[in-house]
Amino acid sequence: MNTQYSLGIDIGGTNTVAGIVSRNGEIISKTSLPTRGHASFEVFLDALKTATDKMLAQHSNLEISGIGIGAPNGNFYNGTIEYAPNLEWEGVIRVAELVEQKFGIKTVLTNDANAAAIGEMIYGNARDMRDFIVITLGTGVGSGIVCGGELIYGHDGFAGEIGHTIAIPGGRTCGCGRKGCLETYASAGGVVKTALEIMDALPGKSVMENRRTQLKAADVYQAAIAGDEAAILTFEQTALILGASLANSVAHTSPEAIFLFGGVANAGDLLLTPLKESLEENLLNIYKGKVQILRSGLPDADAAILGAASLVQKYLK
Amino acid sequence: MNTQYSLGIDIGGTNTVAGIVSRNGEIISKTSLPTRGHASFEVFLDALKTATDKMLAQHSNLEISGIGIGAPNGNFYNGTIEYAPNLEWEGVIRVAELVEQKFGIKTVLTNDANAAAIGEMIYGNARDMRDFIVITLGTGVGSGIVCGGELIYGHDGFAGEIGHTIAIPGGRTCGCGRKGCLETYASAGGVVKTALEIMDALPGKSVMENRRTQLKAADVYQAAIAGDEAAILTFEQTALILGASLANSVAHTSPEAIFLFGGVANAGDLLLTPLKESLEENLLNIYKGKVQILRSGLPDADAAILGAASLVQKYLK
Repeated sequence: MNTQYSLGIDIGGTNTVAGIVSRNGEIISKTSLPTRGHASFEVFLDALKTATDKMLAQHSNLEISGIGIGAPNGNFYNGTIEYAPNLEWEGVIRVAELVEQKFGIKTVLTNDANAAAIGEMIYGNARDMRDFIVITLGTGVGSGIVCGGELIYGHDGFAGEIGHTIAIPGGRTCGCGRKGCLETYASAGGVVKTALEIMDALPGKSVMENRRTQLKAADVYQAAIAGDEAAILTFEQTALILGASLANSVAHTSPEAIFLFGGVANAGDLLLTPLKESLEENLLNIYKGKVQILRSGLPDADAAILGAASLVQKYLK
Repeated sequence: MNTQYSLGIDIGGTNTVAGIVSRNGEIISKTSLPTRGHASFEVFLDALKTATDKMLAQHSNLEISGIGIGAPNGNFYNGTIEYAPNLEWEGVIRVAELVEQKFGIKTVLTNDANAAAIGEMIYGNARDMRDFIVITLGTGVGSGIVCGGELIYGHDGFAGEIGHTIAIPGGRTCGCGRKGCLETYASAGGVVKTALEIMDALPGKSVMENRRTQLKAADVYQAAIAGDEAAILTFEQTALILGASLANSVAHTSPEAIFLFGGVANAGDLLLTPLKESLEENLLNIYKGKVQILRSGLPDADAAILGAASLVQKYLK
């Protein structure tokens, strides 16, 4: 018998993935199912149980000591998913309680960006750090803020929405209904919007012109690698705005490092090099030269499972 | 013998005050001396010891269990004052260590705004709160951020500089060398600048016209109470900018309340009423209706001593 294994479950807008994770972050096995198309959360939960039971049956020698769940709008304090705009279930769902009952295993839940931050702390590049921020640059911009070794949840469990700090007052309209949120500039969709704006200013010059109507952030990255001026400017512009916003975050919690994760972060040095400059330029003097900008140490494909599984090590041991 | 007393010392730019404080926040006795005009920190320390010894001699029945010090640019981790622009001592001063040696009493130090936040938690209006922010609106704009009952110090001990988050990109030049810091709008000097700008836009109409060249924030407050339009607009404008900035702070740490302290906060409802509206207007939906804006519960005259003394209860018990 071995009690060093966790079950990590990431409930995403499209797919839910689950994996058995060892104490040192090795994924023993994983499975997935669609998050959408179930009549209710309970029906989804039946499907999740079936899928994970099948996986667990192949590893019946391993004892699972806890379940960790990452989910959009997940509330750590209540174990709930609350009014998640990208999920089909409405209102407040008591996810941790229902999963714990169904599986008979202690369960802890938090939002996906917070799980990414704890994953970084337990399995990733923040293992020796007590003060850092993880920013996820994907469909949205999420964040998890760690201070003194603890994730900041705030009074209501919803702290850490750096993607919804205002980067440009009166700027782009955000899905949240306000204007100028960092998310509208630093998400995948934000990068595409910036690329289109730059192409308007530099007409006819970009290799991206021929896919204007279906441009994706990954296309901008490919174009930038190929030396396309508009694409390179896009990441520079994104870095300018992100660096200025992150300087404000540093003034709040003074982290040792800020980790970038998600699709936009895959642009690597095209984003990181100008971002380091922009952050440094925007920092208050006392912080200059003290804050590292780093890539996440979690492998893209398994980060969601590892983040979810890390909750077990952080909170259930 | 009674071991329930602390010595609180606040080192300010002009004066240093020290007081004997009981466990429940009663100030038994206090004394003060000029911070400036001493040849070195060691000479200042001699003068401080002389002044406090005289006070302590009158209360020789009380045992002082610890010394807490609040100071500009105070670093909690190191017990140092580091490169404080408003003090005469240059570089890094090992204040806590030198005071502890001199007095033979355990000593802890942090910056003045952090001390205000801990004072609020120990003696003030945040006694039942675990997640809150204290903003000091005075000569500068300082802040102390408390999450899960602990003050956020960050990697280097200098977290919580909300006064140096950018409120208006490209805005007013700040003493820190950057542009648009919240401090340039919400400090006493910032309020005066705003009043002058509004008087320029509404020429001849304000009772403040006759003291244009020596206008102080307190004059703006007096004019506003008397119904002066430019003065009332000044606080409304200050509230708009401060509310938008604080909405970004809420997105970081999701506090239960934000406490205002300092000269500008003394404007009371002239500032608080429009500030509550502005914050609510600017908050991301999930935070709306959840964050209180409150006045500090510490009496103005004694807040600095109480903040400093509270460090003993928080860290040395």
